[in-house]
Amino acid sequence: MSLGFLQVVDSTSSPQGYGEGLFFSDGRRKVDYVLVFHTRRHGSLRSPANTSVSQDRLSVVSNGNFPPSVGSDAAAGRGVGVPGAEACVGEVFMELGFAGGAEPMEPGDLEMRLIRQEFEANLQEAGLEIERDKEVKAHGPSFTRLHAPWPVLCREAEFLKIKVPTKTETGFGSSMSTVWRKLNQPFQPKVPQQDQGRTKFLSHYFSRDKLHLYNITSRETFFDNTTRSRIVYEILRRTVCVRTCQTIGENNSSWTRHLGRFILHEEWARYGVFYKYQPIDLVRKYFGEKVGLYFAWLGVYTQLLIPASIVGIIVFGYGVATVDADIPSLEMCDDRLNFTMCPLCDGACDFWQLSTACGTARASHLFDNPATVFFAVFMSLWAVLFLEHWKRRQISLNFSWDLTGIEEDEVHAVNTQTHTECNDMDKLTWKDRLPGYFINISSILFMFGLTFSVVFSVVIYRITVSALMAMSSDPEIKSNVRVTVTATAVIISLVVILILDEIYGSVAAWLTELEIPKTDTSFEERLVLKAFLLKFMNAYAPIFYVAFFKGRFAGRPGQYMYVFNHYRMEECAPGGCLIELCIQLSIIMLGKQLIQNNIFEIGIPKLKKLVRALKNKGTVEKEKEEEKAPQQWNLDYPLAAFEGLTPEYMEMIIQFGFVSLFVASFPLAPVFALLNNVIEIRLDAKKFVTELRRPVAARAKDIGIWYDILSGMGKFAVIINAFVISFTSDFIPRLVYQYMYSPTGTMHGFINHTLSYFNVSSLKPGTLPSNSMLGEVMVCRYKDYREPPWSPNAYQFSKDYWCVLAARLAFVILFQNLVMFLSHVVAWVIPDVPKTIMEQLKREKKLLVDVFLREEKEKFQLIQSLFAKENALQSGGGVPRARCRAASFSQFTRDIPPSPRSENENSRHTAV
Amino acid sequence: MSLGFLQVVDSTSSPQGYGEGLFFSDGRRKVDYVLVFHTRRHGSLRSPANTSVSQDRLSVVSNGNFPPSVGSDAAAGRGVGVPGAEACVGEVFMELGFAGGAEPMEPGDLEMRLIRQEFEANLQEAGLEIERDKEVKAHGPSFTRLHAPWPVLCREAEFLKIKVPTKTETGFGSSMSTVWRKLNQPFQPKVPQQDQGRTKFLSHYFSRDKLHLYNITSRETFFDNTTRSRIVYEILRRTVCVRTCQTIGENNSSWTRHLGRFILHEEWARYGVFYKYQPIDLVRKYFGEKVGLYFAWLGVYTQLLIPASIVGIIVFGYGVATVDADIPSLEMCDDRLNFTMCPLCDGACDFWQLSTACGTARASHLFDNPATVFFAVFMSLWAVLFLEHWKRRQISLNFSWDLTGIEEDEVHAVNTQTHTECNDMDKLTWKDRLPGYFINISSILFMFGLTFSVVFSVVIYRITVSALMAMSSDPEIKSNVRVTVTATAVIISLVVILILDEIYGSVAAWLTELEIPKTDTSFEERLVLKAFLLKFMNAYAPIFYVAFFKGRFAGRPGQYMYVFNHYRMEECAPGGCLIELCIQLSIIMLGKQLIQNNIFEIGIPKLKKLVRALKNKGTVEKEKEEEKAPQQWNLDYPLAAFEGLTPEYMEMIIQFGFVSLFVASFPLAPVFALLNNVIEIRLDAKKFVTELRRPVAARAKDIGIWYDILSGMGKFAVIINAFVISFTSDFIPRLVYQYMYSPTGTMHGFINHTLSYFNVSSLKPGTLPSNSMLGEVMVCRYKDYREPPWSPNAYQFSKDYWCVLAARLAFVILFQNLVMFLSHVVAWVIPDVPKTIMEQLKREKKLLVDVFLREEKEKFQLIQSLFAKENALQSGGGVPRARCRAASFSQFTRDIPPSPRSENENSRHTAV
Repeated sequence: MSLGFLQVVDSTSSPQGYGEGLFFSDGRRKVDYVLVFHTRRHGSLRSPANTSVSQDRLSVVSNGNFPPSVGSDAAAGRGVGVPGAEACVGEVFMELGFAGGAEPMEPGDLEMRLIRQEFEANLQEAGLEIERDKEVKAHGPSFTRLHAPWPVLCREAEFLKIKVPTKTETGFGSSMSTVWRKLNQPFQPKVPQQDQGRTKFLSHYFSRDKLHLYNITSRETFFDNTTRSRIVYEILRRTVCVRTCQTIGENNSSWTRHLGRFILHEEWARYGVFYKYQPIDLVRKYFGEKVGLYFAWLGVYTQLLIPASIVGIIVFGYGVATVDADIPSLEMCDDRLNFTMCPLCDGACDFWQLSTACGTARASHLFDNPATVFFAVFMSLWAVLFLEHWKRRQISLNFSWDLTGIEEDEVHAVNTQTHTECNDMDKLTWKDRLPGYFINISSILFMFGLTFSVVFSVVIYRITVSALMAMSSDPEIKSNVRVTVTATAVIISLVVILILDEIYGSVAAWLTELEIPKTDTSFEERLVLKAFLLKFMNAYAPIFYVAFFKGRFAGRPGQYMYVFNHYRMEECAPGGCLIELCIQLSIIMLGKQLIQNNIFEIGIPKLKKLVRALKNKGTVEKEKEEEKAPQQWNLDYPLAAFEGLTPEYMEMIIQFGFVSLFVASFPLAPVFALLNNVIEIRLDAKKFVTELRRPVAARAKDIGIWYDILSGMGKFAVIINAFVISFTSDFIPRLVYQYMYSPTGTMHGFINHTLSYFNVSSLKPGTLPSNSMLGEVMVCRYKDYREPPWSPNAYQFSKDYWCVLAARLAFVILFQNLVMFLSHVVAWVIPDVPKTIMEQLKREKKLLVDVFLREEKEKFQLIQSLFAKENALQSGGGVPRARCRAASFSQFTRDIPPSPRSENENSRHTAV
Repeated sequence: MSLGFLQVVDSTSSPQGYGEGLFFSDGRRKVDYVLVFHTRRHGSLRSPANTSVSQDRLSVVSNGNFPPSVGSDAAAGRGVGVPGAEACVGEVFMELGFAGGAEPMEPGDLEMRLIRQEFEANLQEAGLEIERDKEVKAHGPSFTRLHAPWPVLCREAEFLKIKVPTKTETGFGSSMSTVWRKLNQPFQPKVPQQDQGRTKFLSHYFSRDKLHLYNITSRETFFDNTTRSRIVYEILRRTVCVRTCQTIGENNSSWTRHLGRFILHEEWARYGVFYKYQPIDLVRKYFGEKVGLYFAWLGVYTQLLIPASIVGIIVFGYGVATVDADIPSLEMCDDRLNFTMCPLCDGACDFWQLSTACGTARASHLFDNPATVFFAVFMSLWAVLFLEHWKRRQISLNFSWDLTGIEEDEVHAVNTQTHTECNDMDKLTWKDRLPGYFINISSILFMFGLTFSVVFSVVIYRITVSALMAMSSDPEIKSNVRVTVTATAVIISLVVILILDEIYGSVAAWLTELEIPKTDTSFEERLVLKAFLLKFMNAYAPIFYVAFFKGRFAGRPGQYMYVFNHYRMEECAPGGCLIELCIQLSIIMLGKQLIQNNIFEIGIPKLKKLVRALKNKGTVEKEKEEEKAPQQWNLDYPLAAFEGLTPEYMEMIIQFGFVSLFVASFPLAPVFALLNNVIEIRLDAKKFVTELRRPVAARAKDIGIWYDILSGMGKFAVIINAFVISFTSDFIPRLVYQYMYSPTGTMHGFINHTLSYFNVSSLKPGTLPSNSMLGEVMVCRYKDYREPPWSPNAYQFSKDYWCVLAARLAFVILFQNLVMFLSHVVAWVIPDVPKTIMEQLKREKKLLVDVFLREEKEKFQLIQSLFAKENALQSGGGVPRARCRAASFSQFTRDIPPSPRSENENSRHTAV
């Protein structure tokens, strides 16, 4: 049995149902909130965690509405104070349980009724008006509708410092030139509000004493539905928990107008309009600031990906254009140079000619050329620029959405329990929390271990399978070893990543619950951080392996590293590790995006919808029999619940990693990201408009911890790119060769310089190729900087090795510090607050002072004229009336700078 | 001729004069502000810049009150909107000129009088009350006293969202345990307010409709003097500039109570109380938030220097303790090893035995040991910790000073001109500004060049003098070469630094004026940034030279680098560059602090005071003749003007550089800084209490750009320390030797490994020592990693060189990234808002809601009871009275949730 809040104002299923909202039975008072008193079957408590954790937690976590498979996401809903919120397209469903004081079981029906009565009485005392269902049902939901009358709205609006428009207009001058606006026109969505929206009313904190200043056309519509339900929610929050513990979900306004929703459908949630800007203001009006900020962020990100993509394509084009002029790859392809390479595996493999690896060398040049270094610097600065740009956009949005000056909701969106009698959590000592933290740390370490072992397993798979295939006698198998092994290994990686991704999401949610964070904000932050760490590791571990570890532990001829005693550690392809990194990166990036978009974002929700529809059919029909007019929420119930923005953000952040972290090895990453995001925006929009129940509209000033993660990622990207360029690519060895060793100052002879000599006779018996196609080979070559066999320190690292290593390290230092410095400069040069907003704020401030000053003056003049009349009358004899009027104006006079006369007058009157 | 504002409330010279403030002649109305109408001799326009720049600037920069020698500092006063502010102990002097519209000359007397009349009329219209001098003087200052009556105060307090205490108490629970408090007791200053101050009243934005909620004991004292004069200042700011341009200085309250000043004198501005905490709240009450924040910051910095000093002493102690066990220095001191070193100069110098450098080697170990690496990491984290700690302290102060929620003064402390008719600056285009920017950039580059050439000149001085002295035949001169040259060079450096420091300060101010920044905040920021850049370069250039360049361009035997063809570039002392760096650092740090403290902070102000006293004697006496009772301000006039906090901050920030930047080479830096600061706090306090005119009390929430500079310096320190450890110290070569080359795994043989061989016969003729004391030398040694003469690549860098270089670079990367990561973790783990404040804020919020709700309820009950009475009366027949009362309460009823009955009642009454 549970008590919940539910707001129903608008329906999507019946076209004739689109109204301005539902009303009390008198047809005049608007329903602002609906309390649901719900008798539930006990079996429906689905929570997997309820039994495993302590009593106290019961009151915090949920009433069992977390579906196990979407733990992380459902929990994200709690970020706005809504455990187990279930939202639907047209309505906000909010059902909540009482976790009674001592008993783990739910309280009895009688007690519930008492609680309900007390609760409703408290609400009435707070000024809300209540309408109950006429008949009382034995089971099933029964509803209590709430209406907030004007005085309550005013009072609360003053408390909450809600900003409302005054009568004063303040032109919101667009900084765009007319030419630019005209050019921009085709990309603007056709949203009527946007065109008019340029005239902004000066807004000010609501105060009941300034009513005449506000633009009040009607008391019913002055506060929009969003604000009304926010106000009611605040009252509910204050009123509950007198007798028992309860978590209340924040509720918010319904679809304000059907027209708006239609526009969203046509101008936003359609692939056809992919080239247009998003109607962000409308999105915000519908889904609240938090969702609005997500789409605005996604828009800014996608928009900024355009220049990055263009530069990426140019860099790639440079690689394509210069591939035929690149001396190292020409030398590699040159048969005449005749480099006989040492065999790639023991026994089964033969010596081979370097020129056979010509293809990969040429491909490698596409990504490994000097332009890539420029691109890495560019992208690092791009990341900073993106963050700065977003900061500005956020401030602009805050300004135009009148969020400036509101104190962060989080500060008082602290979980209700902490304020109430049942704030057990406050009493949790370090000792109580220790096991939770311990489990947390050990689980995270375990999961890191799991990820690493998965990477290692794939490596083992590659090593063993290629060794087995190399030993095969079938020449066809032999020739396709590398392709087959690489392809299968990457696919295995991808599948494992996708599976672990889902698992890690749930684990992160579970672990965060164990920590029992005090506030919802801290819950969300911890959850996001954990999920991010796990998912990031999961997605990037194989890539890190290829970039920095593959081939570095292979040893050298005559002293190879072995795993399981007889499998040699894998080496990179002859073209270098960069091309492998590039392949790995592109497959994981594309595969992850395609599969997640198609299966997880389209397929599974559809499936869930179907299942839910089938499951609910029975109940709905039963209800239909009972009531003649089916309630609207029953029709929308089959839609999927909104599970928070965490998965959406997470997907994008991981993608941001592909775009920023390893961009030095894959300049086309921004292009793919751009293509994906153009689809992603509309996909998400479609999901929000048609597939999900209406989400709880949450207020937010910023994107929260995601910004920190993005900025941390940007910083991490600098060092990673520095290492990729200096260690994975051949950029530094080439530079060193050209300026220190090359006799001609050109790249000629570079390939020879990078290859060391090996005396075949020192190979261990059994590892020599059994029958070589290249005849008797005395000396073979391998890629490393080591002393030749004829040196006194044979096979030790040569001076060249240390020299190149020093150059690589110096490059890392130079690159990292240069880019960090430039980033700081960029961040410092770009002001956080756009100039237009700054000026607008200044202007508004001035206007506000003017308005108030004028008001004061008018008041003063009015009173002076009244007193003049008064005096005239007084001399005529109308004493009682005059006194009365004077008394009623004494309230005014204390506010204004009185002339000495009026002051005297005043004191005389009040003294009467 | 100029018009100014001056507030005189309290005097310091006459003990009987300490009152609660000055009053109008009626003895009741408080003087909140004094306008000074001042006829000045035209010769007193001392501005050096007035004639050199354009007309527009005249209105911005000043009326000639910038003394040329303190340009940067006087300009800093502008940060709070006060060009040329001259403040005095007991009073705030504010004199301002009109820069008339078109004429460069000042407007005529008649026009001035008209302006004055119009201005005063406007002030009266704004509600201020005015009292003028009785007789009108032909020249000399004449005063207009302003009083802000209660209604004006109320109105403005509402506009300015001033927070005032309500009647509700909110215990400000101290988080300290009683034991700790007892231990801490002796360090607490004896300030009566602090003990009571723990009970804090809940404060709220002032609103005229909530007067009954505030703790108003008397209308005269409810707003303290600070607030009153701030309010008057706001009105002045709005009112001026109807006819002409004018900059108004913000004015602020006087000494609130003599008692407080006495306490400050006894418990703060005395060396005897150096071990005590500062009475920051009292300081803030006296000097305003900005000065309060400076001293709070200085206090936090000094406090945190204590642990740093302790660790520094321990690290130094470790060096002292292990010096006898250090194998490299033992080897260097060992005569038996017999290393014959190549001569240090051409011709005149002989070969020498390494063991003669034993002393410096041992001294070097004191600072160059593994503990130093730990200390460098520690100090980098310490810097982060310091900044985080300060952030928390700042938030605590903001909270207890009720600054939370106020919008930054800066936003509207924008220079008044921009709002007025004469906002020429807004019209300045890029073209107008270009010359200013051009001069800026070229001057700064020139000054950088100047600094570098000074460093280079000192180097040349050292080279030539030591060469000349070495050639001398006197053995006594010869033996003291190094000591003499080093000592004189450092002293020359120090003197040049001190002189340039002053010059750069003025140049920075001049350059910033050229830029014509739009707002005062931006003026201050640009000024500080420029001054900091120049002064930083100036102070640190010689240190950077020693740390990273000295000895690196000396070449090798047989191929030395020469300046002026026959002077060899200098090398580091045999003990390594670190010991030289250490000496340089300590001398510059100590010398700068001692000289700046004694001469610039004590000597010069005293001198100035004397000069001013002598100069003003005549005028004062003349005035005395004219007026019988000498005004208090005349007696305080000889005190020095407050020149902004910029020099104080600058000194500390440069010191912070010594503590953080090169701490790896000088672990005792924190100790010296601590000793200096303990004195500095009391010195500054003394200066503020006794030596300076009372500064303009400016509101500030934070320390502004200084925080950014500190944090930038902290970041820079990481990379500098990484380079000092890896390149200047011998830490890395030792590690490399021990783990890569040492045959025994110990440090034995390290010295031999670092010395290369040189075949004396390859020395150029004439550079060989003329007659060697060491007999026939075939091979001499020098400190470098080069191939021996018998190698095929003789004298080229050896493999060891590259290996050590790679290790050094790797260490830099490792150190930098590790420390950066740890810093981020530290900054992330420490919450910005202290827990107690967080809880307090929560509690206050709840209290506030409770208070307001209770108020609503009481109102409602009152009205209900009134209506009940009313009805009773009405049935008795007292209609007119009842109606009257009802009407007067109709204002109340619109605020409260009315019962349906009262609502009806209401509408009926108002309809009457």
